[in-house]
Amino acid sequence: MEENPCPIKELTATETIGREEVVVEEGFESNSLEQPLLKRSPTLTSSHLAMVGAKVSHIESLDYEINENDLFKHDWRNRSKDEVLQYIFLKWTLAFLVGLLTGVIASLINLCIENIAGFKMMYVADFVKKESYVAGFLYFTGVNLALTAVAATLCVMFAPTAAGPGIPEIKAYLNGVDTPNMFGVPTLIVKIIGSICAVAAGLDLGKEGPLVHIGACLASLLGQGGSHNYHLKWRWLRYFKNDRDRRDLITCGASSGVCAAFRAPVGGVLFALEEVATWWRSSLLWRTFFSTAVVVVVLRGFMEFCDSGNCGLFGKGGLILFDVSSVTFRYQWVALPPVVVIGIIGGVLGSLYNYLLHKVLRVYSLINEKGRVAKVLLSLSVSIFTSACLYLLPFLAPCTPCDPSLGGACPTTGRVGNFKQFNCPNGCYNDLASLLHATNDDAVRNIFSSSTPTEFHAISLFIFFTLYCVLGLVTFGIAVPSGLFLPIILMGAGYGRLLGLYMASYTGIDQGLYAVLGAAALMAGSMRMTVSLCVIFLELTDNLALLPITMLVLLIAKTVGDAFNPSIYEIILEMKGLPFLDANPEPWMRNLTVGELAAAKTGGMVCLQGVEKVAHVVEVLRSTGHNAFPVVDLHGERSKLHGLVLRAHLVAVLRKKWFLAERRRTKDGEARKTFTSVDLAEKGKGFGIEDVHVDAEEMGMYIDLHPFTNSTPYTVVETMSVAKAMVLFRQVALRHLLIVPKYRGSGISSVVGILTRQDLIAHNILGAFPHMASKRGEKTSNGSSLS
Amino acid sequence: MEENPCPIKELTATETIGREEVVVEEGFESNSLEQPLLKRSPTLTSSHLAMVGAKVSHIESLDYEINENDLFKHDWRNRSKDEVLQYIFLKWTLAFLVGLLTGVIASLINLCIENIAGFKMMYVADFVKKESYVAGFLYFTGVNLALTAVAATLCVMFAPTAAGPGIPEIKAYLNGVDTPNMFGVPTLIVKIIGSICAVAAGLDLGKEGPLVHIGACLASLLGQGGSHNYHLKWRWLRYFKNDRDRRDLITCGASSGVCAAFRAPVGGVLFALEEVATWWRSSLLWRTFFSTAVVVVVLRGFMEFCDSGNCGLFGKGGLILFDVSSVTFRYQWVALPPVVVIGIIGGVLGSLYNYLLHKVLRVYSLINEKGRVAKVLLSLSVSIFTSACLYLLPFLAPCTPCDPSLGGACPTTGRVGNFKQFNCPNGCYNDLASLLHATNDDAVRNIFSSSTPTEFHAISLFIFFTLYCVLGLVTFGIAVPSGLFLPIILMGAGYGRLLGLYMASYTGIDQGLYAVLGAAALMAGSMRMTVSLCVIFLELTDNLALLPITMLVLLIAKTVGDAFNPSIYEIILEMKGLPFLDANPEPWMRNLTVGELAAAKTGGMVCLQGVEKVAHVVEVLRSTGHNAFPVVDLHGERSKLHGLVLRAHLVAVLRKKWFLAERRRTKDGEARKTFTSVDLAEKGKGFGIEDVHVDAEEMGMYIDLHPFTNSTPYTVVETMSVAKAMVLFRQVALRHLLIVPKYRGSGISSVVGILTRQDLIAHNILGAFPHMASKRGEKTSNGSSLS
Repeated sequence: MEENPCPIKELTATETIGREEVVVEEGFESNSLEQPLLKRSPTLTSSHLAMVGAKVSHIESLDYEINENDLFKHDWRNRSKDEVLQYIFLKWTLAFLVGLLTGVIASLINLCIENIAGFKMMYVADFVKKESYVAGFLYFTGVNLALTAVAATLCVMFAPTAAGPGIPEIKAYLNGVDTPNMFGVPTLIVKIIGSICAVAAGLDLGKEGPLVHIGACLASLLGQGGSHNYHLKWRWLRYFKNDRDRRDLITCGASSGVCAAFRAPVGGVLFALEEVATWWRSSLLWRTFFSTAVVVVVLRGFMEFCDSGNCGLFGKGGLILFDVSSVTFRYQWVALPPVVVIGIIGGVLGSLYNYLLHKVLRVYSLINEKGRVAKVLLSLSVSIFTSACLYLLPFLAPCTPCDPSLGGACPTTGRVGNFKQFNCPNGCYNDLASLLHATNDDAVRNIFSSSTPTEFHAISLFIFFTLYCVLGLVTFGIAVPSGLFLPIILMGAGYGRLLGLYMASYTGIDQGLYAVLGAAALMAGSMRMTVSLCVIFLELTDNLALLPITMLVLLIAKTVGDAFNPSIYEIILEMKGLPFLDANPEPWMRNLTVGELAAAKTGGMVCLQGVEKVAHVVEVLRSTGHNAFPVVDLHGERSKLHGLVLRAHLVAVLRKKWFLAERRRTKDGEARKTFTSVDLAEKGKGFGIEDVHVDAEEMGMYIDLHPFTNSTPYTVVETMSVAKAMVLFRQVALRHLLIVPKYRGSGISSVVGILTRQDLIAHNILGAFPHMASKRGEKTSNGSSLS
Repeated sequence: MEENPCPIKELTATETIGREEVVVEEGFESNSLEQPLLKRSPTLTSSHLAMVGAKVSHIESLDYEINENDLFKHDWRNRSKDEVLQYIFLKWTLAFLVGLLTGVIASLINLCIENIAGFKMMYVADFVKKESYVAGFLYFTGVNLALTAVAATLCVMFAPTAAGPGIPEIKAYLNGVDTPNMFGVPTLIVKIIGSICAVAAGLDLGKEGPLVHIGACLASLLGQGGSHNYHLKWRWLRYFKNDRDRRDLITCGASSGVCAAFRAPVGGVLFALEEVATWWRSSLLWRTFFSTAVVVVVLRGFMEFCDSGNCGLFGKGGLILFDVSSVTFRYQWVALPPVVVIGIIGGVLGSLYNYLLHKVLRVYSLINEKGRVAKVLLSLSVSIFTSACLYLLPFLAPCTPCDPSLGGACPTTGRVGNFKQFNCPNGCYNDLASLLHATNDDAVRNIFSSSTPTEFHAISLFIFFTLYCVLGLVTFGIAVPSGLFLPIILMGAGYGRLLGLYMASYTGIDQGLYAVLGAAALMAGSMRMTVSLCVIFLELTDNLALLPITMLVLLIAKTVGDAFNPSIYEIILEMKGLPFLDANPEPWMRNLTVGELAAAKTGGMVCLQGVEKVAHVVEVLRSTGHNAFPVVDLHGERSKLHGLVLRAHLVAVLRKKWFLAERRRTKDGEARKTFTSVDLAEKGKGFGIEDVHVDAEEMGMYIDLHPFTNSTPYTVVETMSVAKAMVLFRQVALRHLLIVPKYRGSGISSVVGILTRQDLIAHNILGAFPHMASKRGEKTSNGSSLS
């Protein structure tokens, strides 16, 4: 009979006795501070399921910690200078490639959208000019429907994870949560095509979020040297086969995406830093910056190329840039109240939008559960509704005679322009048509236009704002790649300009500036970013003089928004059930020790001995789903925690059948004849215990686990508070945290539990310790929890 | 006889025996991978001394970790909602005040400098006009000498820490190193006056670094509610009496300082993030951003006020802003080579500057050791040398006839302007005088001036560049408040414009742009910042179109610079001996365990029992300088690590004479009648064991340490590698890290050592393990170590 190195069931009795001896001796300790507050419910449950791409999937954590086992240490020590240089060179080459490819793909997406949407709009304008209103409507709706159908079908059939913006999943990935199928080739292709179709279909969504996801996908695929599924692997990328390096690369990808979306290199870096990344280092800042610099150069090159007219309808309007550099803003006290009002309204509207979007997404998830057809039908309904509104609403708007001072610019003849004639007589323009019969980018540009105080009627702006509020709510959840930035900018610009119209008489601020500030305020009110938004708006509007006023608006809007609910990305993360570890522990976590938490865990922990029987290893792997097992050496009555061995490494050993006939510890280097750390690091994804076939004879043999064990796992003493353990867990980017006992002495196991990400999620802990919850509302301050 | 809970000397024998039993049993483990590489030298020495303000001082670490003892936990749990709100309100109020005061002081400094330097220059111009060259020289040199004398004397007499930029010390503070006297009232006042005098004296130094230090000083003083020394304490700030909150506030102060220096709010935040801060959280980003927004508003208000002519000679030129917004840059391939060349030269010159400055500072520290008079004399010599060069060198430059197209702008009549007549006949100007007979800000503005391709002669630019290279090296180390930014900008602009002059025929890039790029490249080559520099330059030059080209130059310069040596701030940190913890452990640290490190420590660790005799506590406090002591409970053969108690808390207990007649553990709440966590958090700075008087009877009594002990200290197992321990130490911001044994069993102490910041500094470890050093050069990659 084998000794059990860390008995959970069998030895509970002896352990309890061992502890009670002590408790008698120091009885007064039992009435310590924590006890009266707790009434333990016996189970700490944790779900490893999350909603990914509108269906529930099993999710795993990522191994960001360096697995310091003997093999790794040996290989690390023997890395030649060439290998180190090769690694550094590769790191930078990959960052360059991420930037380059993101830039190229962003250019192509812009090119396609501008051409498809451009030709569509030109034909519609022709129909309207000929007063064939019904034919125009049918054509408009039909084309939009077809484009939506392509996007939605692709999404639903091939890559459900390509729906939505993808930013919350990237955020979770960088926090250590591996959402399945997020960064594959199908996702990338569907995201590109779907994004082109959805945006060209005139849906109220942006290509910004998807571009971030595309950048991250590219980074992930480059980092693993191609897709696993298609046997596209490059040998020279073997040093990148670990989650840490891929994490860095995906951060580069995400910032490249933002940079490509807004042509904002610094904004892209800051977005990744403020919103997306969980861990950050100076060296990463620099690499990310390099990627975005490459993107900007590519975009510039593309625009220079298109300036010569090689790109069809892609003119100057393609890459988003809302130039308000001509606006001057005089810093006077009288300008302050309207700015504060914009900020407050932005905060209120932003949090209201978050609240309502949450409700809508809940309803949509019910619809999406009904199957693929339901999802496509939902998308198509939204498309028809959008088309109808966009086409028909301008008929409600009055025609405005052109200001003669504008000359030939009004009414606009081309595709792009502020003053669309639409259904109006010659010499007049329809202001609502200028906003609705245009791509979203052009609509923003029109509504931001400065020095045109009489351009828009209040009624048109009101219709515009209301329409985009509705569309912004119903469009986001459908099964196409969709970004949140542009819908929010449109909404915000609408209310900002409307406000400007009414306040024009009191202040001298340009209406275009009101629109810009409104958009910024609503973004801050919904997404709750500060510095990155500020820089993105700075780079978008190309007007440094607006910086202080933008900062003020953003600060107010974020403060107001935070008073109501968390940011939209946090809401989506929570809704999807992704186990995201927050930066700050909840205050009540200080009153709970990790020992208590471990005791409440249901699954328990399975330990292995340093030299373990094959049969036991196989049985343990088959009967549990754990990803890591503590390895304990027993020496008489003493026990020693050797470390932590990963499931993937055990499977690798079993598959290579590296077995010993007798129970002995192998010599130094014996394992290295069969394994290298790179082999192990590749983790043999796709291989599980079910791929292992061990015959009866082999079952009686032994495995020496020492060479594969990470001998330096992070540990905490069982008296550590959960709050501090969580800080450690998150700061050092762990996947497993071992709990060691507070007593040293004979008969005490050398490890009392293991904590994973799921055990540290506030929601899960509150399930096991409901009494904590009663103190929760009282203690939680400044919006750190989801109400 | 008391039992010794963690015997170092006495029980070594038994412990060794206890361990050897094990070693025999698993003899093969002793030839594990690490052993052959190590040949232990027996001592790990660590110096707690560092050079602060040109003299050697004793430095301490900061307690950023939350000290979770019973008192703290109780008070924390009983915080009312009002107290939480009060805390949040205070946090934001203080951030606001930091911004406000930094802005006001920055405005005043600018006002004073512009007026003092302005009047000085006007009189000199008068002398020159009258051809009284000698009188002009004497007047110029005399005024500069007097101003330097004031600055240097104040610095030397009252606040030696006010010399230099202060940024390295702030960086160290935010890393957890408490440099003494850095943030006091004398330092603040001397820094303000000294900076005004030094800059007005025409020395080659900036007010930027000092402004960062001033911001940090203000933050620190506000955070502690005034100075301790002058009994200026505000009760309502008691919740801020901890190092964590002060750290956040000082981060706000540092970014406010940069923002005030460059009028760059986003750049300020990023500077703090990239260069200064060690730990960063999103919430801090937001608060810092708020502070800089306040600064910008204050500066704008001040400028609006001065626009109406209320500020004497303070005109539009006061607050640094090098407007090159009129420069257009066409992205063509032909523009690439000169840009790359600027970047490479910037990197080479920057690292050369770092190297030479290091040498000069070493020489200066020898001079400074000779005493106060030597320090003042050194400063005065530099002042005379500077004055002589600035005054005399323009006579070497040829006179240039004014371009008639400039009209009345040439020669300049007023104080500010591009075309100073100086010694030239009417209708001509002296280009070198335009650069040298101006404040540093004006000089930068002149050399950055765009669309003036014929303004400067090559010979003048060459003299300018050479002069500022020499001045930049000799000025920095003198005993006045001095910033590094402006000298480097001047040097960089000089070589950039010189380059532009020669390359003008090949490319169409404006010479002013060459100067800007040269300045950016040299900054990146010396300071090695990327994103923050990029944004600062963006905000300084007010031209977004230059962003991609600036990024490119910065990336090249930093890469080239990193190939040679570390950044200038790192060099200064290393030179001062401040124990700064790097972000990345050295590669060889993976091959050393914390157990080995602890065994090599000389001082050893002193444990206390949970209930300890007063006499023993007093003796331990008197005989050691340790800041914390592990508290161990003994229960028969088992021992339990209860936690860590701080020296300051022990002193507080001794001073309040909270003694027990018999050896017993106190009941829950007994200690709270005498102490609150706020009392303890104030740490009684200035009270040491020498302030404690305990009589003989009390010496025989007992103290229950449990209520004061942080029961959840972070621990590592002795087999943990130093690299991982260092990651933990830095990421979680620790001051002490306890090492627990790998074996559980009877007779084994429950704590084997304690690590502090000093023990984890690479330099100190290499002293004890010289064999590691031999592998060091081979393994160290991409400039992470100081060569």
